[in-house]
Amino acid sequence: MQLHLSTWPEIEAYLQTSQGIIFPIGSTEQHGPTGLIGTDAICAETVARGVGEETGAVIGPTINVGMALHHTAFPGSMSLRPSTLIALIQDYVKPLARYGFERFFFINGHGGNVATLKAAFSETYAHLADLGLENSGRVRCKVANWYMARSVYAIAKELYGHQEGSHATPSEVALTQFAYPDHIKQAELNPQIAPSGYPIYSATDFRQHYPDGRMGSNPALATPEHGQRLYEAAVKELSSDYLQFLAAE
Amino acid sequence: MQLHLSTWPEIEAYLQTSQGIIFPIGSTEQHGPTGLIGTDAICAETVARGVGEETGAVIGPTINVGMALHHTAFPGSMSLRPSTLIALIQDYVKPLARYGFERFFFINGHGGNVATLKAAFSETYAHLADLGLENSGRVRCKVANWYMARSVYAIAKELYGHQEGSHATPSEVALTQFAYPDHIKQAELNPQIAPSGYPIYSATDFRQHYPDGRMGSNPALATPEHGQRLYEAAVKELSSDYLQFLAAE
Amino acid sequence: MQLHLSTWPEIEAYLQTSQGIIFPIGSTEQHGPTGLIGTDAICAETVARGVGEETGAVIGPTINVGMALHHTAFPGSMSLRPSTLIALIQDYVKPLARYGFERFFFINGHGGNVATLKAAFSETYAHLADLGLENSGRVRCKVANWYMARSVYAIAKELYGHQEGSHATPSEVALTQFAYPDHIKQAELNPQIAPSGYPIYSATDFRQHYPDGRMGSNPALATPEHGQRLYEAAVKELSSDYLQFLAAE
Amino acid sequence: MQLHLSTWPEIEAYLQTSQGIIFPIGSTEQHGPTGLIGTDAICAETVARGVGEETGAVIGPTINVGMALHHTAFPGSMSLRPSTLIALIQDYVKPLARYGFERFFFINGHGGNVATLKAAFSETYAHLADLGLENSGRVRCKVANWYMARSVYAIAKELYGHQEGSHATPSEVALTQFAYPDHIKQAELNPQIAPSGYPIYSATDFRQHYPDGRMGSNPALATPEHGQRLYEAAVKELSSDYLQFLAAE
Amino acid sequence: MQLHLSTWPEIEAYLQTSQGIIFPIGSTEQHGPTGLIGTDAICAETVARGVGEETGAVIGPTINVGMALHHTAFPGSMSLRPSTLIALIQDYVKPLARYGFERFFFINGHGGNVATLKAAFSETYAHLADLGLENSGRVRCKVANWYMARSVYAIAKELYGHQEGSHATPSEVALTQFAYPDHIKQAELNPQIAPSGYPIYSATDFRQHYPDGRMGSNPALATPEHGQRLYEAAVKELSSDYLQFLAAE
Amino acid sequence: MQLHLSTWPEIEAYLQTSQGIIFPIGSTEQHGPTGLIGTDAICAETVARGVGEETGAVIGPTINVGMALHHTAFPGSMSLRPSTLIALIQDYVKPLARYGFERFFFINGHGGNVATLKAAFSETYAHLADLGLENSGRVRCKVANWYMARSVYAIAKELYGHQEGSHATPSEVALTQFAYPDHIKQAELNPQIAPSGYPIYSATDFRQHYPDGRMGSNPALATPEHGQRLYEAAVKELSSDYLQFLAAE
Repeated sequence: MQLHLSTWPEIEAYLQTSQGIIFPIGSTEQHGPTGLIGTDAICAETVARGVGEETGAVIGPTINVGMALHHTAFPGSMSLRPSTLIALIQDYVKPLARYGFERFFFINGHGGNVATLKAAFSETYAHLADLGLENSGRVRCKVANWYMARSVYAIAKELYGHQEGSHATPSEVALTQFAYPDHIKQAELNPQIAPSGYPIYSATDFRQHYPDGRMGSNPALATPEHGQRLYEAAVKELSSDYLQFLAAE
Repeated sequence: MQLHLSTWPEIEAYLQTSQGIIFPIGSTEQHGPTGLIGTDAICAETVARGVGEETGAVIGPTINVGMALHHTAFPGSMSLRPSTLIALIQDYVKPLARYGFERFFFINGHGGNVATLKAAFSETYAHLADLGLENSGRVRCKVANWYMARSVYAIAKELYGHQEGSHATPSEVALTQFAYPDHIKQAELNPQIAPSGYPIYSATDFRQHYPDGRMGSNPALATPEHGQRLYEAAVKELSSDYLQFLAAE
Repeated sequence: MQLHLSTWPEIEAYLQTSQGIIFPIGSTEQHGPTGLIGTDAICAETVARGVGEETGAVIGPTINVGMALHHTAFPGSMSLRPSTLIALIQDYVKPLARYGFERFFFINGHGGNVATLKAAFSETYAHLADLGLENSGRVRCKVANWYMARSVYAIAKELYGHQEGSHATPSEVALTQFAYPDHIKQAELNPQIAPSGYPIYSATDFRQHYPDGRMGSNPALATPEHGQRLYEAAVKELSSDYLQFLAAE
Repeated sequence: MQLHLSTWPEIEAYLQTSQGIIFPIGSTEQHGPTGLIGTDAICAETVARGVGEETGAVIGPTINVGMALHHTAFPGSMSLRPSTLIALIQDYVKPLARYGFERFFFINGHGGNVATLKAAFSETYAHLADLGLENSGRVRCKVANWYMARSVYAIAKELYGHQEGSHATPSEVALTQFAYPDHIKQAELNPQIAPSGYPIYSATDFRQHYPDGRMGSNPALATPEHGQRLYEAAVKELSSDYLQFLAAE
Repeated sequence: MQLHLSTWPEIEAYLQTSQGIIFPIGSTEQHGPTGLIGTDAICAETVARGVGEETGAVIGPTINVGMALHHTAFPGSMSLRPSTLIALIQDYVKPLARYGFERFFFINGHGGNVATLKAAFSETYAHLADLGLENSGRVRCKVANWYMARSVYAIAKELYGHQEGSHATPSEVALTQFAYPDHIKQAELNPQIAPSGYPIYSATDFRQHYPDGRMGSNPALATPEHGQRLYEAAVKELSSDYLQFLAAE
Repeated sequence: MQLHLSTWPEIEAYLQTSQGIIFPIGSTEQHGPTGLIGTDAICAETVARGVGEETGAVIGPTINVGMALHHTAFPGSMSLRPSTLIALIQDYVKPLARYGFERFFFINGHGGNVATLKAAFSETYAHLADLGLENSGRVRCKVANWYMARSVYAIAKELYGHQEGSHATPSEVALTQFAYPDHIKQAELNPQIAPSGYPIYSATDFRQHYPDGRMGSNPALATPEHGQRLYEAAVKELSSDYLQFLAAE
């Protein structure tokens, strides 16, 4: 059940039986010479919709632009500042909490979002407490990184070993190939396996150390079939995680 | 050409020939008993993609959640505060202006966004000037409301007359029916034509005057075929508007 | 009744009979070679005081500096950023709402203020709701542009035709001549009728297209007698609008 | 020379000979049973205009609403939050500094503004330095409290002794009587001399200790003639202060 | 009793008998060739701990970095912007007010903090009122400058006369020598008594007028013994002030 | 070398040989019935000073109050909101980067700070780039959690096994006992080993699941001798980490 394809009376009815909602959150940022700029949003949205079908959860609109300031030396990359993303999350959660939503499950496709999301959750809880909402103490937010799901991680290791890398990875590229088979890109990768091991600092520094944008990965290994396998594993595991999140006291 | 389905070298190449980018902006808000909560985002995104095909423009990620605070007495409605949306627009434009984008065309599906967008454009121009970017004086942002396109307006008048109303209109519902024919909703509308004429103030006040969320409309008149006609008119007219925007000195 | 010329017990008494208050809002910005920098504030304030006399409304302090970032390439122009103006409006309304004011009528002299004012109203309603004020749902804000009043518009058309233009117009200049007959300025206008038709973007861009600051106008047509006629029409029409605003359910 | 009664070419010409500008800043807040709510703005504006006539300085628009949160338990009082006032001052100064203004002299009528103004000046200097404006290091802001001018203070002491008090004082009331002789208010003062000696904390606390709003004063002593004397002393002394401020290395 | 050396049950117990808390606030800024960068924080913390021992008050964590933007042309100086410091104070006070603290006594070591602190107190009171806390009207904040205590001032005058100056003063240096006898610095002072009399504006301007950072002082006069004397006077007087602050209605 | 015990010429000289600086960051929050409220700040500061002695690094002032909103249902706990902490970090780094500092090493004592710190680093890099500082691309920030150092972790496991827990741990308590042997607290722990396994959400929720504040720990196992061992391991490992951070290209 997708929020944007529902009516308000349908959401009112849904709230009688569940207080959970899932938000896909990705990023709009370079993913190397062959990775789609929307990779992280596509992956999060694709997996989230699968989880929605599996669990009956309502799926909110995808947060397409996340925290990717370190990628902004590559044309096309976009980002919110952390303080803007914190404000956005607070704005998202507040009215929904008033309607009765209490479990916010963010399916995330971008490692760079995690820190800001956690900061945003803390600020949001405190803001809800300031408002004195009756259910403010019961509101819970959780970030679930599809690429960190144990089963997903195992498949990636099996398929790609150390060529998985950590940005523009074959596993995320594969998932986008599964989702958008008509948009599979080809380009020379040089070196085949991107450099790795440098920490992330400023955008300038990032591009100096990772000149084509990839971090330690060889995305040429990706196939749509891998993408399907990763998708199915992610949906299964995150569906289970979501249901546990709902059920937890 | 969609940004999220492109690679960064493709965007780098695109910038050699064009400095234009289109952002669909909608809203996630109640649209009456039968209108989809995502109506405004769906319409903006659908039209924007058509314009992208027609003109070759790169289409950025859809801004799904807009300024809809006045709808937040209906479950499922979401909104950014105006000050958050201003920060978001500034964050979106800044790095893109650094890459060389100079014409930002926002195809908008929600009247409630217009005021904040205009405020955001002003604040963004001033911020870019503060940064001293070489091209800051050349950056231009424009909002184009698909539902206000002359040809669209004429069709809506022809098809629905005064039953078009101003929120949860048959024309926007028709466009979503064209885009998502599997998600056409049925529900009793009572009265058939919603009340109209009250100005918009707070969310509470809004719901008191517009109890099922519609404003002056009879969305039961909508059909997917109407939607297609509206879509085609909007794409044609906004494509022309976009090209003029690019070409203007 | 002007707020700044009243005592607090007088305001306490006033609130027993009315919950309305009027704020003049203008701008401090260039108005071409002969227009006063304070034109928009002077017009708004002058008309508002007339409306106050006509209706008995309390008139709050004039907001002299509005949203005029696009004029800031001309010496003497001032502006708030939109986000500052939003904060200011929220600060203005909050304590007054606590005292019992519920109808805020902004008589506006500057087109550039409208978008930000509307954004500010939305943000303010939501903030009042967050506070849980008993009357938060009843607070209403409205912007009334004196220069858009039907009767004013008709007089301007009759007197100036297409030479009215849209900035540094003869009608607003006439009103300032009526208000400040000792400050009527003379300067060569070249061309006599300013260029028009370019949209407004950044301050730099604005000055390139409108080199002396006027937009499409010939303010040399203005006379203090015109100003008086415009003033009387504006006061009459906005007084009526204000009373309707108060009376509306 | 008043900014709002000038044209932009006049300001451009002024900047060839002076980089100084004066802003009156007051407050819109209760001043006891007989003091005008606009007392502080009226006093600052009146004195500033006198200083403008004396020195030829350009006088900017009056900041009518200042920092008066502690008065907001009395109907009609208004205030900016300090953080809003800081943003406002920064917005005011930035474009003027770009035009070439370098000496900002704030003639102040309200003790409650001083702390926030000083904070705002500091934040503004740092912001201008961040912008890298060529003249950022030369921009100077100064607050001049008319009621603290030595000559003014001496007259107040002579006329009122300890009945001057510290809020709704006979000296400020006298100055408003001089400025607005038609708005002299009469009301019983009980006790004749208001209580004094309690520090200022929250608005609630303030009203508990100062039930009619006055602090230690007996404004019944005020006369318009006193007001004129105070006005003349203030104009003379602040004119001299302003000229020294301009001349200082 | 120091907050950081206490447990939460100890604080819970303390609140049964007292609602007071003391925060040392200093600065991290240049203090001339021989003054420690932490002088203001060291002095505030040292005195506050003495007051804590004397009165049994709980002493909160030292605010080490204050508002010192005007010192930031000297390496090692740090500062919060005023708006950040306002946010910080609000964040500090809010949860403590919820626990039941109602008297916040800031022992301050830096003149540059005073304006922002006062602004912060005002903003905080208003924010607490917005929250609707039961005790919001009773919360009181006070800044106590140890160097302005009458007894301290008298000693400084006696010991140093006009060589006390106003920044990097022998009295504050003496107090740091008493607190940190192993960190007494020697350096040539040229001139022996620093220049004085220039107002404080931007950081660049400050350094031009005060090239080694001192303002009017001769810190070579300081001795640890003086420091002890000043310390004892400050502790005695501020202890008394704190107790009065607690006891006041 | 501690910043607060240095003079500005000493810092100027230091910058000739090193561009590194270390900031201890802790928290002021409940640590169970026996843990000090300042535990995290004490640990970070103690270790940082050791690292400073070992490496010659300059140690900045301790950030005593961190992000601990989830602890604010226990009296005495304090916190910055994440957005405030982000502003603070930006304020800290900006002037220091101007002086020439380029490596900011935050020795952290509180897990709850990590997410916000990382968000703050990103926002700071982007802000420095906006300023156009010559060295903005070279500025690097890193958070080093003393309790996560491999050697520390190994000792904690060896000494406490699963009774280490994750908040109010015996290892952090031991380190405070080593640092403040006069402030070792005794209280009954019931149960001896605190509950564990609940994720962290709002402050209310936290206290419901962790009624005395501890998470999974048995701090009664702590001794000052353990503290010394942990301290020495932490200093050794973090000194090495810091030097690597400085040396990295």
